Amino acid sequence: MADAITPRAKDYPRWYLDVVQKAGLADNSDVRGCMVIKPTGYALWEKMQRALDRLFKDTGHVNAYFPLFIPKRYLEKEAEHVEGFAKECAVVTHHRLVAKPDGKGLMPDPKAALGDDEILVIRPTSETIIWRTYKEWIQSYRDLPLLINQWANVVRWEMRTRLFLRTAEFLWQEGHTAHATAKEAEEETHRMVDVYRRFAEEWMAMPVLVGPKTDAQKFPGAVYTLCIEAMMQDGKALQAGTSHFLGQNFAKAFDVTFKDAANKEEHAWATSWGVSTRLIGGLIMTHSDDNGLVCPPRLAPTHVVIVPLGRNDAERGPSIAAAETLAAELRALPRDDFYGYEPIAVKIDTMFDKQPGFRYAEHELRGVPVRVEIGPKDIEKAACAVARRDVPGKEGKQFGVPLTGAAAHIDALLRDIQVKLFEKAKAFRDANTVTANTLDEFKALFPMEKDDEGGSGLKFVLAHYDGSREVEDLVQKEYKATVRCLPFGDAGEPGTCVFTGKPSPRRVVFARAY
Amino acid sequence: MADAITPRAKDYPRWYLDVVQKAGLADNSDVRGCMVIKPTGYALWEKMQRALDRLFKDTGHVNAYFPLFIPKRYLEKEAEHVEGFAKECAVVTHHRLVAKPDGKGLMPDPKAALGDDEILVIRPTSETIIWRTYKEWIQSYRDLPLLINQWANVVRWEMRTRLFLRTAEFLWQEGHTAHATAKEAEEETHRMVDVYRRFAEEWMAMPVLVGPKTDAQKFPGAVYTLCIEAMMQDGKALQAGTSHFLGQNFAKAFDVTFKDAANKEEHAWATSWGVSTRLIGGLIMTHSDDNGLVCPPRLAPTHVVIVPLGRNDAERGPSIAAAETLAAELRALPRDDFYGYEPIAVKIDTMFDKQPGFRYAEHELRGVPVRVEIGPKDIEKAACAVARRDVPGKEGKQFGVPLTGAAAHIDALLRDIQVKLFEKAKAFRDANTVTANTLDEFKALFPMEKDDEGGSGLKFVLAHYDGSREVEDLVQKEYKATVRCLPFGDAGEPGTCVFTGKPSPRRVVFARAY
Repeated sequence: MADAITPRAKDYPRWYLDVVQKAGLADNSDVRGCMVIKPTGYALWEKMQRALDRLFKDTGHVNAYFPLFIPKRYLEKEAEHVEGFAKECAVVTHHRLVAKPDGKGLMPDPKAALGDDEILVIRPTSETIIWRTYKEWIQSYRDLPLLINQWANVVRWEMRTRLFLRTAEFLWQEGHTAHATAKEAEEETHRMVDVYRRFAEEWMAMPVLVGPKTDAQKFPGAVYTLCIEAMMQDGKALQAGTSHFLGQNFAKAFDVTFKDAANKEEHAWATSWGVSTRLIGGLIMTHSDDNGLVCPPRLAPTHVVIVPLGRNDAERGPSIAAAETLAAELRALPRDDFYGYEPIAVKIDTMFDKQPGFRYAEHELRGVPVRVEIGPKDIEKAACAVARRDVPGKEGKQFGVPLTGAAAHIDALLRDIQVKLFEKAKAFRDANTVTANTLDEFKALFPMEKDDEGGSGLKFVLAHYDGSREVEDLVQKEYKATVRCLPFGDAGEPGTCVFTGKPSPRRVVFARAY
Repeated sequence: MADAITPRAKDYPRWYLDVVQKAGLADNSDVRGCMVIKPTGYALWEKMQRALDRLFKDTGHVNAYFPLFIPKRYLEKEAEHVEGFAKECAVVTHHRLVAKPDGKGLMPDPKAALGDDEILVIRPTSETIIWRTYKEWIQSYRDLPLLINQWANVVRWEMRTRLFLRTAEFLWQEGHTAHATAKEAEEETHRMVDVYRRFAEEWMAMPVLVGPKTDAQKFPGAVYTLCIEAMMQDGKALQAGTSHFLGQNFAKAFDVTFKDAANKEEHAWATSWGVSTRLIGGLIMTHSDDNGLVCPPRLAPTHVVIVPLGRNDAERGPSIAAAETLAAELRALPRDDFYGYEPIAVKIDTMFDKQPGFRYAEHELRGVPVRVEIGPKDIEKAACAVARRDVPGKEGKQFGVPLTGAAAHIDALLRDIQVKLFEKAKAFRDANTVTANTLDEFKALFPMEKDDEGGSGLKFVLAHYDGSREVEDLVQKEYKATVRCLPFGDAGEPGTCVFTGKPSPRRVVFARAY
């Protein structure tokens, strides 16, 4: 095929771009750094939103919406925060365009320039505007906790962008909660990173490490940051979600105080947490193959495609009729949590002007988890062929599945695919996680000749380090690797730093990252 | 109560603001012209989104997402469009903030100024960026129709804003479709205005007039605009949704052509259509009363609130138990289309430290359609009291409703409220729609002494006019009224223009508008 996808082994970044574009997920736009999310990509995001939104509501959160614009004077209020974000803000300085004096095109109207105090930035994240608002909402301990989430677009002016993984504008959700005590806020920080873990593992079928970031890697303005980190197929790490304990930093910056039960004035305690359209990039790079997208069934925009076959109308008629019956049976299955309480999404492919092989390849490219083929020979036997997307080729295809009971068979298969994808990804990560006890071992695992853009064959490397910013800076510079996280539940034994020989309380995870 | 809502008769605009703020729907923000949508308001918007999204998908549309930023050079491409929107655009001119030389605060970094060709505006609407993208997506008639919708935020820099009705940033959906023929595009334009009519009438319980706008009132860049117009309780009109036939204007501006079946190159035909968070304002002003929000059950964030009563724990225990049983029964009712295939949303109010009257008033303020009261005397009779929000006072309250069967009773009541709200609003509009056959009659109906901000007692006025822009300008200037639409299915007989005596093919609807 002219339109073939570049194999992963040949050029991993090119493979990724091919899958994103050819599966109809997203495309670069003419606007610097901004992507267009195409219908299939957006349908995937809608599925993610639905599932996450339910998890948030089940943990007591409600949604609200705050302004896109943040006055620049707000950003100035939290020192670390401004340090982190001022350098990548889109800045609004005028509120009107007018014709240029020569009449050729438009220009910002000098008469509509915003005063110094009115200048706005597009939100890179909303802590400042939200805490300015919470000042109005929080007076008493009875107003707490405030458990609010926002679905929104944000902008961070990035110089090097990559579809879904790093774009100037992206879609995300950001939770912002306020609490009466540090303890409650810390519990919330942990609760939400665990919601992210559950979503990553149970919906995306993407295993993740969970734990705190180092100080060097935490969110600007946080006391500490918890994260989920996933391994992509090239051995690189993807930070897939973060949950921040913000202490009283933003409450102090915006003077948000409340009266406690004893009528004592206190600053509120804060958390924030977010995941973004970047997750779509993570999903692609966890499961997909050289034939295109592989999508876990719980998030698939289309669960099943039925392909009726036949050389002429006489042959096609019965195939189509059988396809329609099966589709109706699938859609009539009871709604349950696995499918987000929606009917199974089934499509019937009627591209009879194309060869069967082309049709199969098209559905594989787009990541439909189960494909059913029904041709004249199947009809004779009242059967069909069922192919699972996660197992390529003949091994994944079952012939002679009786049409009676096929719906239940497919339903079970979809649930099995969900489990198997997770197991496969977990086995891959475990097989590619290694220990380095000496500098030489460490060096060998992050060879500099590997192209930063490629990096196939990289590992998660467990190694001791002395906890200093100096070592982190050195590792970043010399090996393009970072400490990804200090995984919970995996404290390990103390040892000595691979780089300085100083004492180290535990091993941490180093990796190259997206 | 200190917190009472200003009565409508006293000050209608103040009443509106009171309801919006005190029912927890929205608030002004510190950012010029931008609102904060509070949790109850956002929950209402989510309900609207769900219902509309299903209607769009049922008519074959899919969602996608396009960039927030529009290069200013795109806006220049369609003459009427730029004329319409350039004067209210937020303009991005820099991509970084830096510390001021004196170290006191931040300023746009002169080194990060965008070149003339890179300057961006925040989308006021997305025709230009989307048609620039469609140029890449459309080559052949096989690529058509393209039926795409986007849920997004947009910005129009307004000088006079009002919560939900007119804000600098608002949330909306915008459909953008491309077709092979004018006929198909026109059919789509009509189909979507009818989707809006259905949504307004069947979900919002808000009757609307449907028909084209005059040329003076159409969308900048459209061939014609169809609209739905609703009457608010003060007799003013609210444009609640629009569907535009764009002809080939944007296809020509962005050079979007396709090869038809005969291999002939053609420009594509376009529509666009949108509704926004303004609908929330319309909903409030259609149904609410001096006690607060009245919300049609199909869009209510909470359908039923159960208020257990009792002076002490011994009395409260059985009331709470009965409330919990009833809540469980309500939540277990079969999911159906009326409730958007979600369980009925029930809350149990446990504010025992407040007087019953305060608790009732709180739920009335927040527009919960049905309130159930269960106290010790009810428990004795195995019954409860059920109050419907749409009928205030004693008339709307039924005592002695047996707890057995109460769930079904409440379900039926919710459906009845939905119907009655529509009927009541329609009767109000019909009673306040009048005919003016002379200039004196017309003048008397739009007295200038009425405060533009108030306007209670205004009417929809059916009158003949000669179809000229001059008369429209005059009516706007002299009476602050506009032609709202030329309703379909109500052509009427020809006559003579009330203002010029020239011939008129039909009466049109004049009104003051939000």
